[in-house]
Parts: sequence; structure tokens; C-alpha cells
Amino acid sequence: MHKVIFDTDPGVDDAMALLFLHNHPQIDLIGITSVFGNAAIETTTRNALYLKQQWDIAAPVARGLGETLDPARPHVGWPTGIHGDDGLGNIGAPATVDLPCDPRPAHRFIIDTVRENPGEVTIVAVGRMTNLARALRDDPDIAVLVKEIVIMGGAFDMRGNITPAAEANIHGDPEAADAVMTAPWPVVVVGLDVTEQTVMTRKRLADIVAAGGARAKLLSDISQFYIDFYEQHVEDGMVVHDSCACVYVVAPELFTLRSGAIRVVCGGIADGQTIQKADDHLFPPNAWDNLPSQNVCVGIDAEGVLDLISKTLGLNPAA
Amino acid sequence: MHKVIFDTDPGVDDAMALLFLHNHPQIDLIGITSVFGNAAIETTTRNALYLKQQWDIAAPVARGLGETLDPARPHVGWPTGIHGDDGLGNIGAPATVDLPCDPRPAHRFIIDTVRENPGEVTIVAVGRMTNLARALRDDPDIAVLVKEIVIMGGAFDMRGNITPAAEANIHGDPEAADAVMTAPWPVVVVGLDVTEQTVMTRKRLADIVAAGGARAKLLSDISQFYIDFYEQHVEDGMVVHDSCACVYVVAPELFTLRSGAIRVVCGGIADGQTIQKADDHLFPPNAWDNLPSQNVCVGIDAEGVLDLISKTLGLNPAA
Ligand SMILES: [Ca+2]
Ligand SMILES: [Ca+2]
Repeated sequence: MHKVIFDTDPGVDDAMALLFLHNHPQIDLIGITSVFGNAAIETTTRNALYLKQQWDIAAPVARGLGETLDPARPHVGWPTGIHGDDGLGNIGAPATVDLPCDPRPAHRFIIDTVRENPGEVTIVAVGRMTNLARALRDDPDIAVLVKEIVIMGGAFDMRGNITPAAEANIHGDPEAADAVMTAPWPVVVVGLDVTEQTVMTRKRLADIVAAGGARAKLLSDISQFYIDFYEQHVEDGMVVHDSCACVYVVAPELFTLRSGAIRVVCGGIADGQTIQKADDHLFPPNAWDNLPSQNVCVGIDAEGVLDLISKTLGLNPAA
Repeated sequence: MHKVIFDTDPGVDDAMALLFLHNHPQIDLIGITSVFGNAAIETTTRNALYLKQQWDIAAPVARGLGETLDPARPHVGWPTGIHGDDGLGNIGAPATVDLPCDPRPAHRFIIDTVRENPGEVTIVAVGRMTNLARALRDDPDIAVLVKEIVIMGGAFDMRGNITPAAEANIHGDPEAADAVMTAPWPVVVVGLDVTEQTVMTRKRLADIVAAGGARAKLLSDISQFYIDFYEQHVEDGMVVHDSCACVYVVAPELFTLRSGAIRVVCGGIADGQTIQKADDHLFPPNAWDNLPSQNVCVGIDAEGVLDLISKTLGLNPAA
């Protein structure tokens, strides 16, 4: 069993990833921490509570941060054209959900949970890296107590998606991401290089609904707005970015990794770009030297990943 | 016939590119402009004159700039471990060459030559972009009078070679390169994405010497030091970066292009990185908007390029 904290900004593809973690028999979901990104922190936290309620998830929700690690960064608008005004594809989520949050802020929940389970916690982070960076700042010693950090974010050997240089999760808080990538915990980055290969077609999603019952039906309803957005990028369906990071936890054999130090560009036209120095390539002295080697996914068995997602989302139809 | 100005910092692979341009029957080499980079400007200019003398090249040599467009940039040392202390693989080039330079500085030579041949001049630039940027600054109107700029430089969908982010020619003067990429002249960039696929083996170089006589023999002598350097990167032989740009002029069909605006990162850990916004991908408003689309080489027929280089360098053995 993998003990997982899910750090997330639901978010349509976040919702799918959450249902994957909840359903998968080898995942013990021990906490959900919200972060801003796909919507404001009030919205993503409400959405996390709403999905916890609808899907009967036991894990607590801890509310996370709502602004960048560097408060001087200007705010950029929310991607309502992708995730809807409510962050869940405009399904009409209720304004409030009658469930409490964990009393602690997300970064404190992360610190406490890691310290209570030394060497056992995997953190799957699929929003901005703000909560993780704040946890590191408040308690740097947790780095060596975490089992693994699996991030959905970044674009390494290709363009970004929010700018030609940068992917949205990293671009949303570059200073936080640079702190997370360079800390002495093991990081695996599942970026656009592989996630853009995982396109879930409308047909596949319909098959999931047929197998998965009411939970899958809600997920499908949430996803329609996002699928409409993706019509400008893919032929049919949605890219399931965040679920790829969850699949990595239980099926790493479906990914090819490259090892090397990772830095995030902070400022300038490449703001938020992720750049890795592969361990096996020689360079003159540079800003990547003497930093821990992390792993970047450079290859994926996309059909295998989609099949595992389908199978997992179709479990527990009567629940 | 292609009228070509060769802007170069010889440099071992520059020497090969120069012999290619000199030998190729469809190239009319009308000027050689030196620039600093592989060595100081005194050295690269001396080397251009030396090769002109040894190979009996008619085109004049105009001495170019020896410091970055922004004089505040700190100087970085010369890559003597790649090109030798003399920039020509330590063959023992004479301290001075008894040939005059053109009386004009390189950027003025470029401006005058372009104005005398409107719409007809291709500039093949295989060093830092300093001379071209200075020509643009002094006479911006030349941009629409140039036929094409073909650059060896940059790394787009892959790591750099001088840092994990940047290729050496662009990294050597990022402000100059950004000015060149964003000007309204047609630019084709032949970067590491394709040049690193062109490895000339020792065997192939020996065959060129057998066919090409004394000129090819000098080229081979110059190249041995560089080949020794490349042993840490390739199995056998040398990457012929600069010659690829020359091949593009006469055989563009050997390359696959991608169109889109190009910017160069100036400052920070990605200093000197080249980033293209492909025309066919949508982004929110960004720093690439409203700039001219340029072409980046994203594919190459490496065997075809190497064959054409071999054939061309082997011409005129008795000259
Ligand atoms: Ca997300
Ligand atoms: Ca050169």
C-alpha cells in the first residue's frame, strides 16, 4: 500500500486523479491538501470537499495557500475557459459544502503527517508547488522523511502550455517549484513531455461511466466542459495530465525516466520553465551543479496508462 | 548562385564550413566577417586571413567585434579545450598573416554589401550574433534587403551545450541574438537539434583527405584536436555544426523546418536559451506575440548532409 497525500487544485483533471487515488486498491489516500491554481483557493478547497462528499472519501481535506510564495508576484487570472467558473466544468457545484476542513493549514498538515509516518508518505502534487515549498520552508528536515514527491508539471524537451516556455502548474509559482525541485527529497516529475500523449477519448470516458456507475457519471459530467476546451488541441477527448502522476505511483514501469538536477527559471520571458541537467552530460560549471538528481519522465506507455486509468475509474460501481 | 557573406569565429568547424563555401560551385563567397567566440577577435581574424591565404580564397576578410553588444556582460574564457589555444586545433598557425583586412569593420562591410546587392545576399552566421546585431542597430533598414540569414546556434527541443539551457554561439551574446531573431529578415536557425546528428567519423575525414588533396589535408590537421575533445560526447569523430548551416543554403530539402517567432532569454539561469513559439500552437498573450515568424530546423537527413559535405570538401584537389 502507498500512503498518499494528494496536493491538488480541482480542477477537472484533478477530479479524475482524485477518483483514481480513491479507487485504486494499492493506494491509501491519507490526506487531500488544496492549493490555488485552476481557481482561487476558496473554490479549489470547496471542490475538494464536494468531491470528498460525493465520492465518500475518508481522507481529510486541509486548506492550502492562495497566493504565490513570493507575494510580490502579480496575480494572473484563473483559467475559467478550461475548468469553468466553478473549477469543475460548470456543473453547478453548491456554494458551500457541509463538511469541515482539517483545522491545520495544508503545509502544517503535510509536515505533521510526514513526521508521523517517516519514510512512508508519497506526496502527489498536481497544482502549484506553493504548499510543498511552504512546508519545506517551515520544516526543512521533512525532506529526508518523505518517501517520494510525484509532480505533474513542467515541460522539458518541448514547449510549455501557458507560455512557449512554461507549463501552467510551474508557471503559477516558479519560486516554489524551484525550491521543491532542488530539495533533498526524491522527486519524479511527470510533465507535458509525457502527459500530452494521454488523450482520453469521449468513447473511453463513456465506457468508464458504463462500468463505474454514479461516481464515474459525476466525473464525466465534470469533464465535458474541459473536453470542449481541448477541441482546439486534440482531435477528440481530454488530456489527463494529473492522473498520469497518480498512475506513476502504482505503475512506474509504464514510464521512462531521466535523472539529473532540475531548476526552474524565475523571471524573464522563460519564467516558470523547467530545465534539467541530465547526469550523463558534461557541462562547464553552472547553476545546476551540486543539486540533487531528480527524475523526469521522458517516455510513457500511453495506452497502458489509459487502460489502467479506465480500469481503476470503473471499480466500485455500486459504492 | 548564392551570394554569401560568412560571419565566423574560426574555430575548427568554422574552417570546415569555410572550405565548403569556397569549394561549392553554387556558392559565390563575397565576404568573410570575423567575430569573437571560439577565440578572441585578434585570433579569429588572424585565422580567417590564414585560411584565406592557404586556400586561396578571393573574398575579403573584414574584422568584426570583440565584445558583446551589451558591454556590461562579464567576459567568459575562450573554449581552448575544444578549438585549441590558436583556435585552429594547435596546428601552429603563424602569429601574423601577410594579408590585409578590408578597411571597414565587419558590420559596416555587411551594411555596404547588402545595400550594393539588394535582395541577393545570404548571410551565414556561425559565431556570436554581435556583428549582425550591430549592423541592424546602425542601419535597421538593411533587414528587408537581406535574402536570408542562416544561423548555426541555439537548442530548441533539447538541452544546450554550454549550459543545460543554452548553446554556445547564442549564449556568447544573448542580447545580440535576440535582436537578430526578432528582426524583420528571414532567419533559418540550424541548431543543436539537428547539428548534433551530423557526426563526421575519422574514416570519413580520411576519405575526404584522399580525395581533396592539400586543402583537405590542412582541414584534417586542424580537426584532430577537436575530434579528441569530442571523444567525451560521441563514439568517433566530430560534430560538424557550422557546415550544416552552409549545407542548408544549397540543399534546404535535407532539413525539416518549423515556423514561429523566436526569442532569446537574456539573464538568469537560462541565459542564452532559444525559445520558439510555433505558429500552429495557441497560447495566452506572451512575449513572442507580434514578432516575425522565423524557421527552426527540427529535422535533418544527417547522412545526406554528411555526403554533401564529403563530396564538396573533396573537390578541387589540385588547386
Ligand atoms: Ca491540477
Ligand atoms: Ca563557429
